[in-house]
Amino acid sequence: MNTIINEQSAQAFTIKKGDILTVIDPLGQQVSDMVVFNSLDHNEKLSSGKSLDFEASILLTTGNYLWSNRSNKMMKIIEDTNGRNDFLLAPCSQETFTIMYNHKGEHPSCLNNLYQNLKPYGITTDQIPTAFNIFMNVQFNTEGKITVCPPTSKAGDYIKFRAEMDLLICLTACSAEDSNAGSFKPIHYNIEHHH
Amino acid sequence: MNTIINEQSAQAFTIKKGDILTVIDPLGQQVSDMVVFNSLDHNEKLSSGKSLDFEASILLTTGNYLWSNRSNKMMKIIEDTNGRNDFLLAPCSQETFTIMYNHKGEHPSCLNNLYQNLKPYGITTDQIPTAFNIFMNVQFNTEGKITVCPPTSKAGDYIKFRAEMDLLICLTACSAEDSNAGSFKPIHYNIEHHH
Repeated sequence: MNTIINEQSAQAFTIKKGDILTVIDPLGQQVSDMVVFNSLDHNEKLSSGKSLDFEASILLTTGNYLWSNRSNKMMKIIEDTNGRNDFLLAPCSQETFTIMYNHKGEHPSCLNNLYQNLKPYGITTDQIPTAFNIFMNVQFNTEGKITVCPPTSKAGDYIKFRAEMDLLICLTACSAEDSNAGSFKPIHYNIEHHH
Repeated sequence: MNTIINEQSAQAFTIKKGDILTVIDPLGQQVSDMVVFNSLDHNEKLSSGKSLDFEASILLTTGNYLWSNRSNKMMKIIEDTNGRNDFLLAPCSQETFTIMYNHKGEHPSCLNNLYQNLKPYGITTDQIPTAFNIFMNVQFNTEGKITVCPPTSKAGDYIKFRAEMDLLICLTACSAEDSNAGSFKPIHYNIEHHH
């Protein structure tokens, strides 16, 4: 039974070490920004800089681990039917739309949706790290130029993570036009308990 | 008159908006990890994820800005005689040497040197973000594979930053063998006050 994250929103929840989290793109071409904290100590959290270093890769998929700022394994990717995710770019924020999209006025954003859902756990906006951007298709060349492209994920594609410690997780259904080919869609997820 | 950061150490200092910081590689092939905080509010700090997004590039050099987690410009790179820097990898830590180098026992690390020098400012290890790694030569291909190579910097190469806000800065002379071709060397820096 999948849980639904509605378009341009987010949900936070905790899972235990050994649990399996599956994140599903039900309609295709949608992105989910995922941030992860040690549920017993929120000062330990996902680190893109440590993960890219330990995995020796910018692109993480099946078999790779996500690491914390304290150099501990937080999650293992055990299956990934699409295979393209991003770990370079910070969650879209109000300023993303003002500065990069030249948008006037308020715009829903992953950063604000992460914050609103993590607030009950005592987490501030400033504590939110660079997310693991599931299904996000960020292309780059060897000169470093970055281009955000529509996701390659098709309806039903999913990624499965095994928790390597007790975790607080927040997942979004992304709010940025460039990340999902201009159409806002839901994200589904599912937790299998193994304890 | 340049200030000297001895091999495998670090120094922290504050500068004001408009000041020019020059970081020099006096002997060539040495790396300096730089972390940056808003000196008036340490919860605002350097963000690799925001910088790569706003600059649309993995590789930042002359003309690029370094951005904060609050989407503000912190520094502008106004000159860069070497031109290759890294913003992907987190500072080397004790675990870098234990896990990646299979090193036994204690090893000096940039993360510990950053922490020791930032402690008087009330900053904890967990608050230290992914650094802007000056002169670090991290190669990657379009499949995302990362290789840490010796720096291309030659003796006397330097990079100049203009502060876009009042800043607390910490600079290291890197402690990792892979980042500087196995030889530990000093880093020099210089501040021009423009206020």
